[in-house]
Amino acid sequence: MTDSTKNAAILLIHCPDKPGIVVAITDFIHNNSGNILYLDQHVDSERGVFFMRIEWDLENFAIKREKIAEYFETLVGSRYEMTSQLHFSETKLRMALFVSKMSHCFYDLLARYECGELNVEIPIIISNHTDLQHAAERLGIEFHCISITKENKKQQEEKQKVLLQQHKIDFVVLARYMQVLSDDFVRDYPQKIINIHHSFLPAFPGGRPYHSAYERGVKIIGATSHYVTAELDAGPIIEQDVVHVSHKDSVEDMVRIGRDLEKIVLARAVRHHVHHDLLVYENRTVVFE
Amino acid sequence: MTDSTKNAAILLIHCPDKPGIVVAITDFIHNNSGNILYLDQHVDSERGVFFMRIEWDLENFAIKREKIAEYFETLVGSRYEMTSQLHFSETKLRMALFVSKMSHCFYDLLARYECGELNVEIPIIISNHTDLQHAAERLGIEFHCISITKENKKQQEEKQKVLLQQHKIDFVVLARYMQVLSDDFVRDYPQKIINIHHSFLPAFPGGRPYHSAYERGVKIIGATSHYVTAELDAGPIIEQDVVHVSHKDSVEDMVRIGRDLEKIVLARAVRHHVHHDLLVYENRTVVFE
Amino acid sequence: MTDSTKNAAILLIHCPDKPGIVVAITDFIHNNSGNILYLDQHVDSERGVFFMRIEWDLENFAIKREKIAEYFETLVGSRYEMTSQLHFSETKLRMALFVSKMSHCFYDLLARYECGELNVEIPIIISNHTDLQHAAERLGIEFHCISITKENKKQQEEKQKVLLQQHKIDFVVLARYMQVLSDDFVRDYPQKIINIHHSFLPAFPGGRPYHSAYERGVKIIGATSHYVTAELDAGPIIEQDVVHVSHKDSVEDMVRIGRDLEKIVLARAVRHHVHHDLLVYENRTVVFE
Amino acid sequence: MTDSTKNAAILLIHCPDKPGIVVAITDFIHNNSGNILYLDQHVDSERGVFFMRIEWDLENFAIKREKIAEYFETLVGSRYEMTSQLHFSETKLRMALFVSKMSHCFYDLLARYECGELNVEIPIIISNHTDLQHAAERLGIEFHCISITKENKKQQEEKQKVLLQQHKIDFVVLARYMQVLSDDFVRDYPQKIINIHHSFLPAFPGGRPYHSAYERGVKIIGATSHYVTAELDAGPIIEQDVVHVSHKDSVEDMVRIGRDLEKIVLARAVRHHVHHDLLVYENRTVVFE
Repeated sequence: MTDSTKNAAILLIHCPDKPGIVVAITDFIHNNSGNILYLDQHVDSERGVFFMRIEWDLENFAIKREKIAEYFETLVGSRYEMTSQLHFSETKLRMALFVSKMSHCFYDLLARYECGELNVEIPIIISNHTDLQHAAERLGIEFHCISITKENKKQQEEKQKVLLQQHKIDFVVLARYMQVLSDDFVRDYPQKIINIHHSFLPAFPGGRPYHSAYERGVKIIGATSHYVTAELDAGPIIEQDVVHVSHKDSVEDMVRIGRDLEKIVLARAVRHHVHHDLLVYENRTVVFE
Repeated sequence: MTDSTKNAAILLIHCPDKPGIVVAITDFIHNNSGNILYLDQHVDSERGVFFMRIEWDLENFAIKREKIAEYFETLVGSRYEMTSQLHFSETKLRMALFVSKMSHCFYDLLARYECGELNVEIPIIISNHTDLQHAAERLGIEFHCISITKENKKQQEEKQKVLLQQHKIDFVVLARYMQVLSDDFVRDYPQKIINIHHSFLPAFPGGRPYHSAYERGVKIIGATSHYVTAELDAGPIIEQDVVHVSHKDSVEDMVRIGRDLEKIVLARAVRHHVHHDLLVYENRTVVFE
Repeated sequence: MTDSTKNAAILLIHCPDKPGIVVAITDFIHNNSGNILYLDQHVDSERGVFFMRIEWDLENFAIKREKIAEYFETLVGSRYEMTSQLHFSETKLRMALFVSKMSHCFYDLLARYECGELNVEIPIIISNHTDLQHAAERLGIEFHCISITKENKKQQEEKQKVLLQQHKIDFVVLARYMQVLSDDFVRDYPQKIINIHHSFLPAFPGGRPYHSAYERGVKIIGATSHYVTAELDAGPIIEQDVVHVSHKDSVEDMVRIGRDLEKIVLARAVRHHVHHDLLVYENRTVVFE
Repeated sequence: MTDSTKNAAILLIHCPDKPGIVVAITDFIHNNSGNILYLDQHVDSERGVFFMRIEWDLENFAIKREKIAEYFETLVGSRYEMTSQLHFSETKLRMALFVSKMSHCFYDLLARYECGELNVEIPIIISNHTDLQHAAERLGIEFHCISITKENKKQQEEKQKVLLQQHKIDFVVLARYMQVLSDDFVRDYPQKIINIHHSFLPAFPGGRPYHSAYERGVKIIGATSHYVTAELDAGPIIEQDVVHVSHKDSVEDMVRIGRDLEKIVLARAVRHHVHHDLLVYENRTVVFE
């Protein structure tokens, strides 16, 4: 992936695979004086689907930023039935952090944010507890405690949505947020909510995966970062990693060992999202690296 | 683990955890002029169970080989409600290899056998196909083709059992043997049938796990070696390992990549079994390394 | 990487990075009725070098196979100072296997060859010992024992070269071949001799790396596959992998554990070479996956 | 490893391997009414050295804490030429953190400290810069900025030593502290200074290892935590881990990717030290897990 500091456009595409697609796209860019900085493509030959990520320098590009999507769709996209997304490297995404009491993913993301590794704006942190308010305050990030019960869930989620809109949030990261979001909420943010689950999905979905891993006697535990969908822990997987354990590791050991996995897997997923490195197609991700 | 070439006894024990167990065992060995070569123990503090693997030199040991089990049980085991197994390093285990058409685990085990890495005798290979007969013949191992259908399964398994008895087989390795053994068969060989499953169990049990892994869009695939029990792919896990994959990998790529995992995970499990490195307790393994 | 069974051309390129390269290449293919099957590129922005691997269907391609290289060089390559290689997916590479006494990499490669995983022809096996002659014979591969001493090395290497020429060998794989090839030999086969070294290079080059690893007390051992160059164990690295070890592992344990690494790392490197997935530039490899 | 919350004694031993050692030690504990909680041993058969870690409950132990070392040495240790260390689980080690400007290991350790994962006291942080003073202040830890130049090094190290003595520091952690400690300093803290080096040692010792890794074109980068000795980056290795990289990763990418390795490898090493899990013998560590 290019960590371009240039003023670049990034196009993510998928469409039915046909001859001529690559040339149609590269010619569109070249003929309008765009210099290609990065190109990666993938063909899912079983499904007959073409995927591409292409990035080009906008410095001398003949088409104005706000017109590129329209021109591309008219001149190229419509011809090949493309589904496309256009992003600009200069636009910093605005991220909301949801957290409960467990702090490891939360602190880890904030440390990356503070040292400039995470190229986003974090205008708001939302939690169902006040435990981590101090950390938000230290960094000057707005903190909202919105506690959730079975009874108030609907109205509290409305409050959350209002906050997300007010702060023009582009995507949400659930850093071990211990509440299941309602289907309504999830539907409003398709491929915009990133969760970290503390197991190697699809093994051990739902609650207490380390207990289940211990009971089953697995020799490896994992963590999975995925986009949240209506079905619990079944959304498109962005990143996974694992670590070996043994009979000597109690559930508590797994919890401790797993924390290091969780924070790294989540951080990698957020990075992919922020860099527009990934596409979702039929509940699977294509991650260009 | 000690790769002792000495004439040694190996004792595997589990019992309710109590003070004094280690001393009772080490004193039994020491007072009878045995020199301890290896000792490892583990306490499952949640379940309150003590586990141990201890190995000692038999050279000057005061108790005759054939009496050790009895003396130990009388003097130590019964006092602590121990479940114990006694093995001798000089005894080469006799292993039967079950295989179908896929050859990677089969060839890999035979190559290890041929170069002396696998410290067993393999008097017999059983297959439901004749495809790999030539390899058995080259190594001078008896080969029996016993084809299985729904109708003849019961009687064919009887033939298999007779062969296992005739050849005094200690344990069976299913090297991608594409038949599910009947409950009856499995019951006759508790913790003596080792299988390799081509997924990271408990994810994707049963058939076609690579297809399921592809469909789910996982970023990691695995292989699991376990003892066979009546419930399919649910026996105690001996070894697991994984490898990263990406959206570029088709099912066929996963099959190819997975072959390297399967053969190594199976070989490690067989090695643990042969070295008496592991105990099973409540469907979990304790693997002393 | 595409495991295309199609009749395809594969072009590997590097050149100084400039605007317009991607379009020049894709247009060349498209304008001559070639359908692009795969495209991956990489820019080394520090060195200002552009790298590409592109693969296209030859079915309707307007330029004859034997003229493609010339036309490409004239119309595109010369304009951008490109260094390029052209390969055809239908051409099976001819591989010579060099081996001594250690058999694990040797057997592993042959098992892959036999089951069709390794898409090459192996017309000849050369060894300085006769230990593995039987395996060559079983597979009907010509076997030549050419023993090497300090005194006869020059003339024996001449014999080897004659054999490689007679059999039109495209590349050589040293499957734990325990002889250092002379500079003269190496110079005749640039980026055509693949070696497996039993350490994580650049740690522990030269002989007895497992002994050195043990002495240094490392917690991880590795294996490295690389192209052979005049400087020992310093050629471009194709593949590396590692495995954790502990204080419990003796040198002999490392040798045993390392064997599984070596065979897999070597097989992956051979696969990359056979699929024309890699380029060498300034002693580093670019591996398109 | 036992995360015992009990009031326990931990004994680490090495001595020439002889029959009877295990029994001598276990009898000493048992006969004085100590209950063994953990026992692991290892024999280095090449060097003929016996290693052991044993932990027992002090609740009913007949010998007073302050007399245990003397009694053990008199009754057991001297008989077998043992080198031994005695620790008590109730004693919290006092750790000093040395840091420069790079914050990832520093923040990571503090987050573990704050959430109670790291069972130590950190009374003091020493840095050659003031960049991270705010973090120390927030946690109420004394912070001392002691800048180092070639000229003032000797006297500044004296200041550091005085601070370590005043705060009764048990061990020092160099969390990417960018100064080489003098031989004098190192000699005063044998096996009490833990460093994190950003390479897979012994590959790439000294400065700028990611640059060297990039130049060499390795496919894997690593991090190594070790005790500091007089010879740079050559001390006993406690922990190592690695991650795969590719030609796509620039030096900057490696620096970023490496940060996640460094913080985890260092944290694991600190944990081993704090839990008295490791012994050093002839520049190698024995890590009981």
